[in-house]
Amino acid sequence: MKLSEIAKILNVEIDRSKDIDIKKISKIESSSEGDISFIANPQYEKYYDTTKASALIVNKDFNPLNQRNDVILLRTDDSYNSFVKILTEFSHSAVIEKEGISAKASVGKNFTAGKKIFIDDFVCIGENCGIGDNVKIFSNCSIGDNVKIAEGTVIYSNVTVYENCEIGKNNIIHSGTIIGSDGFGQARQKDGSFKKIPQIGHVVTEENVEIGSNCSIDRATIGETRICKGVKLDNQIQIAHNVIIGENTVIAAQTGIAGSTKIGKRCMIGGQAGIVGHIEICDDVIIGASVGVSKSITKPGVYLGYRAKPQAEELKEEVRIRNLEKLEKRIKELETIIKNFTSK
Amino acid sequence: MKLSEIAKILNVEIDRSKDIDIKKISKIESSSEGDISFIANPQYEKYYDTTKASALIVNKDFNPLNQRNDVILLRTDDSYNSFVKILTEFSHSAVIEKEGISAKASVGKNFTAGKKIFIDDFVCIGENCGIGDNVKIFSNCSIGDNVKIAEGTVIYSNVTVYENCEIGKNNIIHSGTIIGSDGFGQARQKDGSFKKIPQIGHVVTEENVEIGSNCSIDRATIGETRICKGVKLDNQIQIAHNVIIGENTVIAAQTGIAGSTKIGKRCMIGGQAGIVGHIEICDDVIIGASVGVSKSITKPGVYLGYRAKPQAEELKEEVRIRNLEKLEKRIKELETIIKNFTSK
Amino acid sequence: MKLSEIAKILNVEIDRSKDIDIKKISKIESSSEGDISFIANPQYEKYYDTTKASALIVNKDFNPLNQRNDVILLRTDDSYNSFVKILTEFSHSAVIEKEGISAKASVGKNFTAGKKIFIDDFVCIGENCGIGDNVKIFSNCSIGDNVKIAEGTVIYSNVTVYENCEIGKNNIIHSGTIIGSDGFGQARQKDGSFKKIPQIGHVVTEENVEIGSNCSIDRATIGETRICKGVKLDNQIQIAHNVIIGENTVIAAQTGIAGSTKIGKRCMIGGQAGIVGHIEICDDVIIGASVGVSKSITKPGVYLGYRAKPQAEELKEEVRIRNLEKLEKRIKELETIIKNFTSK
Repeated sequence: MKLSEIAKILNVEIDRSKDIDIKKISKIESSSEGDISFIANPQYEKYYDTTKASALIVNKDFNPLNQRNDVILLRTDDSYNSFVKILTEFSHSAVIEKEGISAKASVGKNFTAGKKIFIDDFVCIGENCGIGDNVKIFSNCSIGDNVKIAEGTVIYSNVTVYENCEIGKNNIIHSGTIIGSDGFGQARQKDGSFKKIPQIGHVVTEENVEIGSNCSIDRATIGETRICKGVKLDNQIQIAHNVIIGENTVIAAQTGIAGSTKIGKRCMIGGQAGIVGHIEICDDVIIGASVGVSKSITKPGVYLGYRAKPQAEELKEEVRIRNLEKLEKRIKELETIIKNFTSK
Repeated sequence: MKLSEIAKILNVEIDRSKDIDIKKISKIESSSEGDISFIANPQYEKYYDTTKASALIVNKDFNPLNQRNDVILLRTDDSYNSFVKILTEFSHSAVIEKEGISAKASVGKNFTAGKKIFIDDFVCIGENCGIGDNVKIFSNCSIGDNVKIAEGTVIYSNVTVYENCEIGKNNIIHSGTIIGSDGFGQARQKDGSFKKIPQIGHVVTEENVEIGSNCSIDRATIGETRICKGVKLDNQIQIAHNVIIGENTVIAAQTGIAGSTKIGKRCMIGGQAGIVGHIEICDDVIIGASVGVSKSITKPGVYLGYRAKPQAEELKEEVRIRNLEKLEKRIKELETIIKNFTSK
Repeated sequence: MKLSEIAKILNVEIDRSKDIDIKKISKIESSSEGDISFIANPQYEKYYDTTKASALIVNKDFNPLNQRNDVILLRTDDSYNSFVKILTEFSHSAVIEKEGISAKASVGKNFTAGKKIFIDDFVCIGENCGIGDNVKIFSNCSIGDNVKIAEGTVIYSNVTVYENCEIGKNNIIHSGTIIGSDGFGQARQKDGSFKKIPQIGHVVTEENVEIGSNCSIDRATIGETRICKGVKLDNQIQIAHNVIIGENTVIAAQTGIAGSTKIGKRCMIGGQAGIVGHIEICDDVIIGASVGVSKSITKPGVYLGYRAKPQAEELKEEVRIRNLEKLEKRIKELETIIKNFTSK
């Protein structure tokens, strides 16, 4: 790609006489000649003097001490988002342009499919499934009976979608993820054994959902487990039966959400967090990494700690624990004074 | 299904002249006409007045303020278990009735199989395997050499069972689960590198075990990793080499149990709990969510906390920490009194 | 295998007239006649009197109270490593000797392969892939375009390697592991929704890496995620984009490492630990199980606690919390004395 093309995409003027071929996008600290990189975080400005990149996307107010003539600057209002824009251009993957149904795939009865779909080798699709335009399903996926997958969705290799689930438009589902496995419902019997509670519900994902690798999203006991519009899930996340995740909520890796809990909109949940069942988290809540939530949260804000508390409270508590040594000393001193005094 | 048929299963009398067709089972708060639902938890009694369900399973002593003529009540001694019974009737899945060995599967030498088995597309079964009556193995599973799977077991898509493992009767194994991968045995060498300790044992699951999606159950170094009768595992659980899980123990999602640890019978272990290696947990222990267990537990009871403690102890400790602010104030007051006094 | 052959491997002399056939390796507490076992940990010496094993590998200074004539002892300088050596001999698995490309596999254009490779049924390999000598890929694996896998590597069933990744020499990758899924990069938009940041980097694993089952190793945003020489990962580990794990570091199950973090050499990280993004852990750090690391660590040593602290500090803090009850009592006593005193 020519630098002039990149400049055009970003709506930036460059000196046409200096136009060059851009070989690849790279990190500023490990660029080579012909690369384009960027500076958004001021911490990275220090690399300006030494980077081998030939072009940099920077903020309009970027003002280096020593100007370099061998590095072309593309100045934009928001260098980070400009960079993401260019990254998106460069990433138009050949993979996504694949088309057709492999002769080595297996497709069940009553299959309906849109245009430009791709079904890779060893994909097994059950009966009565419907697949929208531009859906791409990669090798070794297993799609159960009566599954609907809406247009534009990409499902990477080795994903399982159980029967009756509905996958929305423009979803991205990464490898190893399981959608629609049975919820964990076990009724204790008088003899101490457990009897399985059948799970006859399903899973629905709305549009623009992305799910990382090796996640588990269980089907509902009855009704549905629902992942709303724009939700982004990282890897190895566990979503139990009948959970609802609100619009545009993002969840980092290895977090688990127990049964029937409802998460609000625009929440941000850190990695390895744990949220118990049958509670509600309101909109706009931020939950830190490894935080344990055992009660409903009704106020937006930041929550931290082994037992989730509002951030200020948790931080104060941590300070108090750190100060315990001093507290012990103060008591000791008081005791000594009193002792001296009373023994007089 | 007719309501009269449901009533018969539950051993309840209904007015035959009022018999209706039941369309589906639903949650009381989101039922439609023709649905059957239930009330077990008194919290849900409030939905009685507004539910659109045509029939409800309720406890014998259910006594609503305003009786509705358009909702037929089936009264039983235990409405929850009655509901589970009906759920089981409704869930007789077509999936489970599948039969035959797909031409697109691969089955190794010396295969022995019972009646009514189902081997789906792209299942790969190694040599010398034996599969009991009514075993169903869904698409893209990989079963290693010398594996035995006893009658009635269902293995969903994309499961891997390594060589020499034994799966018991009436097991349910969900997608993405790995049984028999190598235990994590690494012997440190003088140069700081690690040498693999071969893992030549295997995994045995006994009867009526259910394992959720994306679990990992490692084979033993020597001998066996054993999941006893009636154990129920949720999703994303890690069971290390040589672990033994006792009868009828249930474990919630994302919990990890390290090598050679032995868990007793009828234990209930919460989600994201972590149990170190080489310890023993006795029978009838309840371990909370996110609890870390680093020592053997020899007394039944409830254990909570980042470092597992008996419940009462942990809760007291939490109160003490919450009271630290007041404690600081009391010390401050004492100091002021003393200061005033001694400065007189 | 003859006992005399085992003795030869360990460079130990035995009485040839007593040579026997060794049936299998077993644990000392559950051996049968004809088995070989070992004693390394003194805790297991108690089993010497009752074991049914016919031969034991023991340390040179092993000196039992009651000598048994029916158990042959092989004395070595390091009985544990000797045992591992013999285990390795016994474990020469038939599986690893498999060869050939299955007619039921699918291999893309421009495939180059070394000698003695094995590609099992339903393995799907993309275009332009290169596979070294003795590489074994088991059933239902999905290997993307442009992947390189160096000699001697074994990939078990149901593994996914995304396009452009590089797997080093003599790696072992267990089932269900995903290498090269997209890093979790989402740029928040003004309307509260998130826009995917394309992930155009890849993953590199160096030689002698072992990765357990159901791990997730994300590709870099740009550049690479790198797992260095000799790293050993247990099961269900999450490695985010652009992470670097230093040589000979070992990590136990269910640990998660967030984006761009760099882990040093020879670190040992416990299970369920969580390490935030964009930090650095220096060489030779030991991090306990379930520890949360939110800042860089610059000094070797042992770190423990919900918020990682040096071991001594964390243990002191725990003692102080345990002593809170006593502290409250001491304050109470002081208050009583003061009250009595001032009320005089």
